[in-house]
Amino acid sequence: MTVYHATTLVHFPLHKPGFEDVTAAAVEAVAASGVQNGLLTVYSQHTTCAVLIQEEAMDQTLDGVELLLQDMVNGLTTLFPTCLHEGQYLHPGPKHLAYATDHGEEGWWSLNTDAHLRSVMLGRSQSIPVIDGKLELGEFGRIYFADFDGVRERDRKARFTVMGE
Amino acid sequence: MTVYHATTLVHFPLHKPGFEDVTAAAVEAVAASGVQNGLLTVYSQHTTCAVLIQEEAMDQTLDGVELLLQDMVNGLTTLFPTCLHEGQYLHPGPKHLAYATDHGEEGWWSLNTDAHLRSVMLGRSQSIPVIDGKLELGEFGRIYFADFDGVRERDRKARFTVMGE
Amino acid sequence: MTVYHATTLVHFPLHKPGFEDVTAAAVEAVAASGVQNGLLTVYSQHTTCAVLIQEEAMDQTLDGVELLLQDMVNGLTTLFPTCLHEGQYLHPGPKHLAYATDHGEEGWWSLNTDAHLRSVMLGRSQSIPVIDGKLELGEFGRIYFADFDGVRERDRKARFTVMGE
Repeated sequence: MTVYHATTLVHFPLHKPGFEDVTAAAVEAVAASGVQNGLLTVYSQHTTCAVLIQEEAMDQTLDGVELLLQDMVNGLTTLFPTCLHEGQYLHPGPKHLAYATDHGEEGWWSLNTDAHLRSVMLGRSQSIPVIDGKLELGEFGRIYFADFDGVRERDRKARFTVMGE
Repeated sequence: MTVYHATTLVHFPLHKPGFEDVTAAAVEAVAASGVQNGLLTVYSQHTTCAVLIQEEAMDQTLDGVELLLQDMVNGLTTLFPTCLHEGQYLHPGPKHLAYATDHGEEGWWSLNTDAHLRSVMLGRSQSIPVIDGKLELGEFGRIYFADFDGVRERDRKARFTVMGE
Repeated sequence: MTVYHATTLVHFPLHKPGFEDVTAAAVEAVAASGVQNGLLTVYSQHTTCAVLIQEEAMDQTLDGVELLLQDMVNGLTTLFPTCLHEGQYLHPGPKHLAYATDHGEEGWWSLNTDAHLRSVMLGRSQSIPVIDGKLELGEFGRIYFADFDGVRERDRKARFTVMGE
């Protein structure tokens, strides 16, 4: 039995939800693991991030977001509107803000409640069968690593765990 | 260690979201694998499909959809309304449509943006513990394979991966 | 290869969605399994319950719910409003109610459709990499076991499966 872990760094720019296609990195992790049959789990330890599988849309917005992903953001925004001001959500509360500023963070970095909520709806991970060395994504399926946090530029870590034999 | 893959074909009719109870196929896959302790992952490689666990509702709509699943569709429809016309969503864009028609698809087959978005909210897979050869679904839990794509009749593949010993 | 199962009991009070931080129990399950590298899956067999990973909010509502989790409940409530009366949702139908009352349940215990629907959106499980014996949750990630069923006081079982070596 093999357990193989890998990570890939993803850079997200300021002021918009970001999506990175990590399919190539996932395929590479499966190949590097040597696993022929098993399961790949793609995971985010960041709580404003999500991992999702979606069809490649081909077309993009002016901002470079694939249309199908932007349609998803638009729907999620009706459920969890973009943070525009303090008091819009219950979080962040006074203890959280005191802790953040005591640890060198700017208070407004915590106005990312929308990102914590949108991402948790999609989930923090995806598990995909590996069959005869091939990741089963169908013809058009792609794995996206998303960060919904728009308040600051961030480097994030996408994690891959391959288990099998 | 055992890694066992199985698939079951599911047929979905035209013009409505479809749900297939694949619990019996899942139980069969676990039995065929010989795994006594481990994990079953039920997975969809189709990006308008989802896998979910829900209580069996017993009662059905006139269309044959279990009431609890139809209640779920109704809620998802407020978030991602049914595609009625072009331009309702950003997707499909011109490159996508050109690619689809170049590959023998009808253009209107791509008016299934609602299906891609509703399904991604539920996720493409479920993982369920196998304990002493038994799938842990509680008394009323059932595994449903859903296709939200109503634009055409489709055959879909539900995938089962059992890992353990 | 090791497959290790553990459970922890969670008590949920009456008349509100409940959240239990099961991170310590998850860490304990990983330690007890002896697994150094692999995957932990936290799972609910109850179909009004969900497992989610979220940042610890620190602050709480007057009812003791962390603010970020209450913000999530508030959003989910716009999608699936709280059951206030019969006929608000299609479920429960007559067959379900007859079955429930035939099996010693009160009819109004079935007015928890909102709970079945909110929980399925979040998913019944989370899978988390175990790397060098450590659960990868980042600095602030916590695992919550949620029960959205507010109609009666319940004891629920959170399940942990650790696989690896």
